Amino acid sequence: MKPVLIGGAWRASASASDTFTAINPATGESLADRYPVSGIDDVEAACRAGYDAAVALGALPDRVDRLAAFLEAYATRIEGAADALVAMAHDETAYPETPRLRSSELPRTTNQLRQAAAAARDRSWTMATIDTATNIRSYYAALGGPVVVFGPNNFPYAFNSVAGGDFAAAVAAGHPVIAKANTSHPGTSRLFAELAHAAAVEAGLPAAMVQLIYRLPSDAGFRLVSHPLVAATGFTGSKAAGVALKAAAERAGKPIYLEMSSVNPVFALPGVLAERGAAVARELFDSCALGSGQFCTRPGLTVVPQGAAGDAFLSEVALLFAQGAPGTLLGRAGLSSVIEGIEVLKQHGAEVLVGGAPVDGPRISFANTLLRVSGETFLTHAHALQTEAFATVNTVVVARDVTQMAAIADSLEGNLTGTIYSATGGEDDSAYDVIAPVLRRRVGRLLNDKMPTGVAVSPAMNHGGPYPATGHPGFTAVGIPASLLRFAALQSFDNVRPHRLPPELGDRNPTGTMWRRIDLQWTTGDVAK
Amino acid sequence: MKPVLIGGAWRASASASDTFTAINPATGESLADRYPVSGIDDVEAACRAGYDAAVALGALPDRVDRLAAFLEAYATRIEGAADALVAMAHDETAYPETPRLRSSELPRTTNQLRQAAAAARDRSWTMATIDTATNIRSYYAALGGPVVVFGPNNFPYAFNSVAGGDFAAAVAAGHPVIAKANTSHPGTSRLFAELAHAAAVEAGLPAAMVQLIYRLPSDAGFRLVSHPLVAATGFTGSKAAGVALKAAAERAGKPIYLEMSSVNPVFALPGVLAERGAAVARELFDSCALGSGQFCTRPGLTVVPQGAAGDAFLSEVALLFAQGAPGTLLGRAGLSSVIEGIEVLKQHGAEVLVGGAPVDGPRISFANTLLRVSGETFLTHAHALQTEAFATVNTVVVARDVTQMAAIADSLEGNLTGTIYSATGGEDDSAYDVIAPVLRRRVGRLLNDKMPTGVAVSPAMNHGGPYPATGHPGFTAVGIPASLLRFAALQSFDNVRPHRLPPELGDRNPTGTMWRRIDLQWTTGDVAK
Repeated sequence: MKPVLIGGAWRASASASDTFTAINPATGESLADRYPVSGIDDVEAACRAGYDAAVALGALPDRVDRLAAFLEAYATRIEGAADALVAMAHDETAYPETPRLRSSELPRTTNQLRQAAAAARDRSWTMATIDTATNIRSYYAALGGPVVVFGPNNFPYAFNSVAGGDFAAAVAAGHPVIAKANTSHPGTSRLFAELAHAAAVEAGLPAAMVQLIYRLPSDAGFRLVSHPLVAATGFTGSKAAGVALKAAAERAGKPIYLEMSSVNPVFALPGVLAERGAAVARELFDSCALGSGQFCTRPGLTVVPQGAAGDAFLSEVALLFAQGAPGTLLGRAGLSSVIEGIEVLKQHGAEVLVGGAPVDGPRISFANTLLRVSGETFLTHAHALQTEAFATVNTVVVARDVTQMAAIADSLEGNLTGTIYSATGGEDDSAYDVIAPVLRRRVGRLLNDKMPTGVAVSPAMNHGGPYPATGHPGFTAVGIPASLLRFAALQSFDNVRPHRLPPELGDRNPTGTMWRRIDLQWTTGDVAK
Repeated sequence: MKPVLIGGAWRASASASDTFTAINPATGESLADRYPVSGIDDVEAACRAGYDAAVALGALPDRVDRLAAFLEAYATRIEGAADALVAMAHDETAYPETPRLRSSELPRTTNQLRQAAAAARDRSWTMATIDTATNIRSYYAALGGPVVVFGPNNFPYAFNSVAGGDFAAAVAAGHPVIAKANTSHPGTSRLFAELAHAAAVEAGLPAAMVQLIYRLPSDAGFRLVSHPLVAATGFTGSKAAGVALKAAAERAGKPIYLEMSSVNPVFALPGVLAERGAAVARELFDSCALGSGQFCTRPGLTVVPQGAAGDAFLSEVALLFAQGAPGTLLGRAGLSSVIEGIEVLKQHGAEVLVGGAPVDGPRISFANTLLRVSGETFLTHAHALQTEAFATVNTVVVARDVTQMAAIADSLEGNLTGTIYSATGGEDDSAYDVIAPVLRRRVGRLLNDKMPTGVAVSPAMNHGGPYPATGHPGFTAVGIPASLLRFAALQSFDNVRPHRLPPELGDRNPTGTMWRRIDLQWTTGDVAK
């Protein structure tokens, strides 16, 4: 049985209640390595070690440089271990080795780590604010404890709990990380943790800077996110698990950031369907099929106006769904959830146009599935018809007119993204003006003329949105430096003597390039004498 | 019975389950005006009207200017109505008309409103971020619904639910407000709401921009903060009420910002006691007695080292507590809570040196109360000995040495403030270095050589802190523009056509002075062509 990484050592789980293996989704067979299901003892030990590491980290005067060096060295180690990481993740996820794993997701991951290192070193993310009139100074600083990261199944690298965006953000903001591996790729997580641990030790960081647990019964998971010594949690995964962890953490007053579920509505306005409906249909299918439909930002709902152009669009989309090869899903739980989701959609009036059932054979797969429902029916069962089915599944809502399209937008729950396609000329602008303000309130990212699946690591990205897409509409899980602000406390220093201030808040700009807000003016300069 | 303000009209409560009056704490007698306890009907009507107002507000192209004009006109109206406001608040709180109400708290309140107006007009608070490489743009924007504000009893103006800091921040960030008056000053809140409503209508804002409900049974309160149409809640008040509202709001995925309880520890290091112990004792008493000890940032805990200087300090403080005239508390519930709090402190080993009982007579008052406990005892019952007693009450912890002072700091729950007094020379610096990093993790604002009672309206203020001082360590309730960020969603625009972008995110700087972050550089310029 594989060891856990707790307190700086790879050791046997202290209280394994059970074991598990990963599954190769391409064959449905269990992989050889066996991993422990940890219990409360492992959780307690990890929290204690993580807290001590946070205290030790806070006492290192050069911690920012060490953290940045760690993240960069870790990225380099990942590149050096690419063959092993690609082979392992391919076995655990059935994602293609190329381009998906080796040339797309892995470079994105090392890029995120390096961007996070640059942000840490730059320090501008701390939003240092100096008010010379009162001599009060504030900035965002580490919370003073370990951050727990739960990674999702769908990005074994870029959102991995010990290598992905939350990990990078938590470390760059100054925290040790307790990683809870996604149980569909424990081997990939273990390889990452080996690299990360070695890089952290080499950078002179506390030995418990990086810890790894593979799986937890729910009570131990609740204890972890609500532990008095834990600073905060970042979670990406299912709504059911997220909501339960959210309740546990919040009851204890612990911040938790969740990225849970989203149907990512796409609105195609009348003009664009007439102008280039077939092209939009192709973009929609490609976006839905990306990663076998297992992107958080996959469109799950498409809203079109009724009429000839809408009918032609729907036919085109149906053809593409029918012709496309069905992808491989990440696991059996996901497959069951898709089957249940489709059932809910059907029970509430959605008609299956294409697919609708699992693909026969050992491979874990579900047919590309297109459903249709009328605008009236959608508005009658809006909640149920927003049930997420995490596969190449899309429900097309055929609305009576633009007014009803806006009503549908208004009936949406919180989503990560909302997209509006419109004609290249101005002919859709009045419809846009009706729908966009409504949709804007419901989504974290509003797109024009572009499918939402891609989530650029941009400072202006918002991979977030209103509940239940996330737990708080003010934060993003992707985009540096913004994602660091989830893992930070606002710290104010009132009349604190100059030599006791953190360097970010001294009169002198500590780097000469860090942006600070002095008397409400952003500057890279010093405090004027 | 006084009317509520719902949907733009002063009208009788639709479903009053009961009525109440305010009490004059100086006499213990009920005031004449009678107010309704609203029920679910009023809550539903207010949420619906508030949401419609938010939608209408979002559709006003010049809403920023109107909101700023409203806040400024409201401030002017408040100044014009000062006599009535001072008379009413004096009756409801027994605070002195001058300086407290007329020349201190009222100007602070109008100043906050004007600062909020300036922040709204300036727009820099939105943190507009433009990434030209990807053409993704983001900013913080209104949540798209009304904000609910629960004001506390202790600041009838500056934290009033319809005039104070949360109100100003919510409006400046673009929200209608549903105010839940503090039940100890319904008349003051009603006068404010009359002024605010008139100013909002005059500014051309939606009629339901400002709404007022006086009191709610707890189920209606839970419904209010968790209502699907409500955007967020700001609450200042007791921990018991705050924690219950927090659970209700968070279960529904609604952001809630709470400022609940804090004992505001003060650490006096050995050197400062030797150097100027008597002066620190005077500062401590004055800070404890301010507003009859009913400041959120009143020191409730003082930690000193044992020895001659500590003994002399304690004697000096005891003398001041004994000599000072006991203040008037805001209400009978507060008095009961102080009695209970002192009982808890005593049961866990704190010894009453001065006071400890209510003052006889009709006036609502509790004797200035000083308690002492050893460091050992404090560490044994750290949770109980942090029980807040909201009056001129302070517990002095006599620690064995600096190491134990640091252990006491480490045993603290989240606080708004933490203060360290040290000798003017360097003789306390090594002790400071042991205690300050520990205390820093536990508090929102760290002070040197200055009592924490004053909360300057500074851009660098943090009137916040770790749980249970607040519900989230990343936000402040005081300080503009930072306090606006509580009531904002991160909104990203991906590939959105230029004419559809909000002005804050266009290529051209909409004001010429607004700070924006373009390609990670803060600038007041335009996007380079």
